[in-house]
Amino acid sequence: MESKLPDGIYDIAIVGGGVVGFAAAMYAGRFNLKTILFGDSLGGTIILTDVVENYPGFKRVTGLELAKALEEHAREYDVEIKEEKVAKVEGSGNCYRLWDESGGSYYSKAIIFATGTKVRKLGVPGEEEYANRGVHYCALCDGPIYKDKALAVVGGSDSAAKEALLLSQFGRKVYIIYRGENIRPEPINGERVARNPKIEVITQTNVKEIKGKDGKIAHLVLDKPYKGNNIFPVDAVFIEIGHLPLSDLAKGLGVKLNGKGEIIIDRESKTNIPGIFAAGDVVDTKFKQAITGVGEAVSACYSAYQYINTTELVCLVGDGAQNRNSKA
Amino acid sequence: MESKLPDGIYDIAIVGGGVVGFAAAMYAGRFNLKTILFGDSLGGTIILTDVVENYPGFKRVTGLELAKALEEHAREYDVEIKEEKVAKVEGSGNCYRLWDESGGSYYSKAIIFATGTKVRKLGVPGEEEYANRGVHYCALCDGPIYKDKALAVVGGSDSAAKEALLLSQFGRKVYIIYRGENIRPEPINGERVARNPKIEVITQTNVKEIKGKDGKIAHLVLDKPYKGNNIFPVDAVFIEIGHLPLSDLAKGLGVKLNGKGEIIIDRESKTNIPGIFAAGDVVDTKFKQAITGVGEAVSACYSAYQYINTTELVCLVGDGAQNRNSKA
Repeated sequence: MESKLPDGIYDIAIVGGGVVGFAAAMYAGRFNLKTILFGDSLGGTIILTDVVENYPGFKRVTGLELAKALEEHAREYDVEIKEEKVAKVEGSGNCYRLWDESGGSYYSKAIIFATGTKVRKLGVPGEEEYANRGVHYCALCDGPIYKDKALAVVGGSDSAAKEALLLSQFGRKVYIIYRGENIRPEPINGERVARNPKIEVITQTNVKEIKGKDGKIAHLVLDKPYKGNNIFPVDAVFIEIGHLPLSDLAKGLGVKLNGKGEIIIDRESKTNIPGIFAAGDVVDTKFKQAITGVGEAVSACYSAYQYINTTELVCLVGDGAQNRNSKA
Repeated sequence: MESKLPDGIYDIAIVGGGVVGFAAAMYAGRFNLKTILFGDSLGGTIILTDVVENYPGFKRVTGLELAKALEEHAREYDVEIKEEKVAKVEGSGNCYRLWDESGGSYYSKAIIFATGTKVRKLGVPGEEEYANRGVHYCALCDGPIYKDKALAVVGGSDSAAKEALLLSQFGRKVYIIYRGENIRPEPINGERVARNPKIEVITQTNVKEIKGKDGKIAHLVLDKPYKGNNIFPVDAVFIEIGHLPLSDLAKGLGVKLNGKGEIIIDRESKTNIPGIFAAGDVVDTKFKQAITGVGEAVSACYSAYQYINTTELVCLVGDGAQNRNSKA
């Protein structure tokens, strides 16, 4: 059952080095598929999360610990893990060619996109200028320096609530500023927010601008007055208004996206393109959790395994030489 | 956000006390839903598995350890766990009424079926007669008593291979008897079988009968000769030919099943009946793993939460008194 593929040709390429990618890699290893995983920052976005209490089986771990557990699990198997970003993907014959940012190129019969998301920016004046000088996107990363300061979180999701809860450990006061009528965290986090004397929720309010002086943030400009004033002094603001799916590479291959730019998959984690599978935060699942993404990754891996074993694949390699592989 | 439901009325009833049910219960607890879980044998079928190496995050645990981890995780939250089998379910108003086998009855706005499967029997003469006297369905449970004996596993799945691998630790010889052309385990287990000097695979062969004397098994009767003889002496045979979905309760409510009797769900773990959700081995997922079932459980729980919060529910309780609940 040893793979007889030449150097540089893989059964499966996993694009994304978060928990979802690692779960796919672990299963690919168990399936004896020749596997390469690309991740420009191993661990993925979950390592920005302070406490994870909802990955079934782990009562309470840090995001980093969870990511490490899944990475180590994947490394139990014979899979290649490359700390490289994939810069380009193209169809080649009826397999795929990937290039990393260092210029390396790889062929693969199947691809699993587990590329996740990037943070959505607020898009207001001052946001770029004061980035990392009072404007932040990760409480765990940047919160601890704001001890006893006045902090704001912009957003109303569960993530926004969790960011505020974390920041309340450092700051003297944390405001959640949300455009909607009610914040909508998981109930357990909603209660924690409600009980926390340091946190105040300001709803139906938008941040219009971020102003500073002497090279750091000074205040937010709100679109309606809070206690009679649109000027809202803070020492830092944490933007938590959602994420954008990293689906450009898939889109370039003709993979169908929904209106939010998420990859559309079916229950077997198949996309509309044969040989292309996807899982995790980048796909169109409504309720996205680490655990649902990991489940999708396992389905994706199985679908890829079935595909590889039932499809005659021809990779047009380098000078046009062909690697034919028929297991059908 | 405290539930104001009267005694005996729940937001959500989870039927099934395996890992899938526990994952649903844990999330239901986090959602602050008033939750009851029924399981006649807590832990579910995974506790019959010796080694689990493919639940992402746990490199290698026993099935029992994994079940315990998920049970303890669920018990972190305010959920009621009842070691009772559900005997009957009926629609009541537009909520549901459940009866346990001890005669207790409960109302619930939503149900998640995580009922799993039961073992499929071979259906040959002698199987019932020698049950537990040489005919078994769980190597982990019953294998250790057959030290240095000649054992057979009937089946060709990954589970059959894993049963044989486990039995090879006890028996002097383990035969895998499979009707198909090739056994089809996960490749990693296929290799382990191939490398194991105690295991021999006999394909394209059926067991027609199980014969015994003096109250215990003596030999199998094969449908074609092995080494010139249809009589195949063994000390025990382990049947591992698959499982049957435990979907009768759901079927009784009008839930659609597929040809295999599995509950048909969508990507949000919804069935065709409002308020009824399902996850895990009982549903129509093709590649069923503990982790995919757990992912489905989390989706089911979220769908139930959405349903409960957007539907006016009326439970016709006891003497006809109504509990109206409108959160929409």
